[in-house]
Amino acid sequence: MSNRCPPSLLSLAIDATLYNFHNISSDLSFLPEHILIDLFLRTLKAGKLTPRILKLFLATGKEEILSMIQALNIQLVLTPVLPTTSVKDNEVDIVIGAFRSDLTSFMEEWRPIFSRFHIIVVKDPDLKELKIPEGFDVRVYTESDIVKVVGSSKASLFSGYSSRYFGYLVSNRKYIISIDDDCSPAKTQNGELVDIVAQHLNNLKTPATPFFFNTLYDPYQKGSDFVRGYPFSLRSGVPCALSCGLWLNLADYDAPTQALKPDMRNTRYIDAVMTVPLKSMMPMSGVNIAFDRELVGPAMIPALKLAKEGKVRWETMEDVWCGLVVKTVCDHLKLGVKSGTPYVWRNEKGSAIDSLKKEWEGVKLMEDVLPFFETLRLSPLAVTAEECVVEIAAAVKERLGSAHTSTAETMVEWVKLWKAVRS
Amino acid sequence: MSNRCPPSLLSLAIDATLYNFHNISSDLSFLPEHILIDLFLRTLKAGKLTPRILKLFLATGKEEILSMIQALNIQLVLTPVLPTTSVKDNEVDIVIGAFRSDLTSFMEEWRPIFSRFHIIVVKDPDLKELKIPEGFDVRVYTESDIVKVVGSSKASLFSGYSSRYFGYLVSNRKYIISIDDDCSPAKTQNGELVDIVAQHLNNLKTPATPFFFNTLYDPYQKGSDFVRGYPFSLRSGVPCALSCGLWLNLADYDAPTQALKPDMRNTRYIDAVMTVPLKSMMPMSGVNIAFDRELVGPAMIPALKLAKEGKVRWETMEDVWCGLVVKTVCDHLKLGVKSGTPYVWRNEKGSAIDSLKKEWEGVKLMEDVLPFFETLRLSPLAVTAEECVVEIAAAVKERLGSAHTSTAETMVEWVKLWKAVRS
Repeated sequence: MSNRCPPSLLSLAIDATLYNFHNISSDLSFLPEHILIDLFLRTLKAGKLTPRILKLFLATGKEEILSMIQALNIQLVLTPVLPTTSVKDNEVDIVIGAFRSDLTSFMEEWRPIFSRFHIIVVKDPDLKELKIPEGFDVRVYTESDIVKVVGSSKASLFSGYSSRYFGYLVSNRKYIISIDDDCSPAKTQNGELVDIVAQHLNNLKTPATPFFFNTLYDPYQKGSDFVRGYPFSLRSGVPCALSCGLWLNLADYDAPTQALKPDMRNTRYIDAVMTVPLKSMMPMSGVNIAFDRELVGPAMIPALKLAKEGKVRWETMEDVWCGLVVKTVCDHLKLGVKSGTPYVWRNEKGSAIDSLKKEWEGVKLMEDVLPFFETLRLSPLAVTAEECVVEIAAAVKERLGSAHTSTAETMVEWVKLWKAVRS
Repeated sequence: MSNRCPPSLLSLAIDATLYNFHNISSDLSFLPEHILIDLFLRTLKAGKLTPRILKLFLATGKEEILSMIQALNIQLVLTPVLPTTSVKDNEVDIVIGAFRSDLTSFMEEWRPIFSRFHIIVVKDPDLKELKIPEGFDVRVYTESDIVKVVGSSKASLFSGYSSRYFGYLVSNRKYIISIDDDCSPAKTQNGELVDIVAQHLNNLKTPATPFFFNTLYDPYQKGSDFVRGYPFSLRSGVPCALSCGLWLNLADYDAPTQALKPDMRNTRYIDAVMTVPLKSMMPMSGVNIAFDRELVGPAMIPALKLAKEGKVRWETMEDVWCGLVVKTVCDHLKLGVKSGTPYVWRNEKGSAIDSLKKEWEGVKLMEDVLPFFETLRLSPLAVTAEECVVEIAAAVKERLGSAHTSTAETMVEWVKLWKAVRS
């Protein structure tokens, strides 16, 4: 206990008021300002500031009270700091691109997490058959579905890892969770199963804070907050459009890195998520992501495919390019991107050395395109994700040269497809 | 085991070469390129790429070999990915501003970590006496030392929390670790004592990567690396000039936040550190930081003191302002700032509610100064921290108006003092 003077009469009177606040509905403006302030702070401290009592304080019109309420960012229609995630199950699609004929063990591992949700499986056209266990609400799209929706000339857009993008195209749900079929559920440090759906939705449903760095990571996660010095005007944040999860065991390293360190496995479970700051570009991996389809669906594009790109994650650049596009769109539209939890467990697959020999293009590519994206500024006329993508495509064509003409064209085609499917 | 064909004669020959590489010093350029590539990859995989063998491969002059070496960023004078921290004890000063007359328990708690290093204690001028236990290599600076060095007219710069800055001024070591006297050593999740000196030095000695976001946090920490898509040209990074640690128990929240959530304590030990991206401003806290004095010492400035600013951390803004200055300087000079581990344990101190009533200035302040720093661009003529600070001071005077005149003047004075002490 700290040293204390005996309570003053005033202090006792305020205690009594606090105790009886639920009975008080009268005007408080007759109170002297310093007593009002004391009462307000004590109300806060006691956790008794209900919307009704806040209204009483607001009604006093006293300047210092109003500025405290403003500075603390207390609003009558309150966005709770830790919102109870109120997503309905039917607002979510889980999208899986299937590269293996038998998804039984994969689906069984995920059953506790996925069984409540609608699942879209896009079958790689090269697969002969596809086995999926009973008991899921699943819709399988095959090559003939793809041809039916986009026509045979554009069906090749959706081969290999890009097949998942067909799932994004035909989904009509607000949120999409996308997961590679070589992943298993991860476990937390306490051995609990990581529920990637709940965690991704929590990331997407709470605001992102791209305009200033918060040292204690995402202030909207349980147990965290904004630290001293974080501007109050930026604390409301912006809607989060994209949540990028991480990987235990086989991390998403490139082939050279994995070839140099063949035994390297990611064992560090970092229980944090954070907003990627404005203008900071990042390497998105499609292994484990979620996004708000209504906000940025049109920017989730399978535009860049390297020649001879295979079905080995090491060799693909389509998701990294897509990440540069969607981050540019989010920065322009004042939307947020989060990175961190949830984790998935990635299983062994393929040989880094073989991938290393096959493809160097991806490594060289980033050196050219990063300066392009870093200096790209979209016009104020672009106010939707579709419009942003069309502007980016025009800039790609103009500034990145003939090597990227087909990428630019694919982006424009994608936006047309997106609109056509929805009309 | 995966399916395997029986080994080919060629494969066996390469195995044999690899086995005998230590005896080979001849020209390799007679080998066909595809065999050279195989041999190079197998050498990498076997962990046998020594500087000598690398030279043999370089000497072949074969284009594909050279481009692989370049893309993998293999250099003859190798910066190791996980450098052994080779800081000598006498390159480090630990700086402590003393606000309590008896530092015995504080120093005893830190003894296992601090006893090897030189310690600078700056005694708050308001303290009558100061008790420090035996067995430390400690130099105590008092008010009369401050007057002797900076003159009586400028001694007031170093009162309250700003006293630590006097320690920065008189240190002549390369690295400074600065810690508040209300902190105890934290423990890791495994119950081990966190060695803040070793961890801060590791942050400072390994490169920072401000130009692109790495989703697996600091790629230079043990167990991490750059993820797929991270541009190879940016992987060498830049020198890290500032390491900002975090806090368990009482986190460094502001008074309104702590007043709203009086029972909130930080219990999350996030075992990660990361580079704060270029152009992303952040709220630096002086509670637990380390920096390279030679690189950014002149930018560690006690320039902004609010009227009536007390000795309660909640009320101070001097470190937050300092953080904006030093981040601006680092961005301009291509230096890095890291945030994350190491943690300290912060003990209870003061009343958030009392601080809340005293000071609203700090909250309002950030709204004005952040846009200023976000849009500030320094000239190419500023190539040292001193020159950057002088430019920032001129811009503060010109653009932030009369309320900040004394801040600007203090910044200029600080640079003069910094030079004078060193000459």
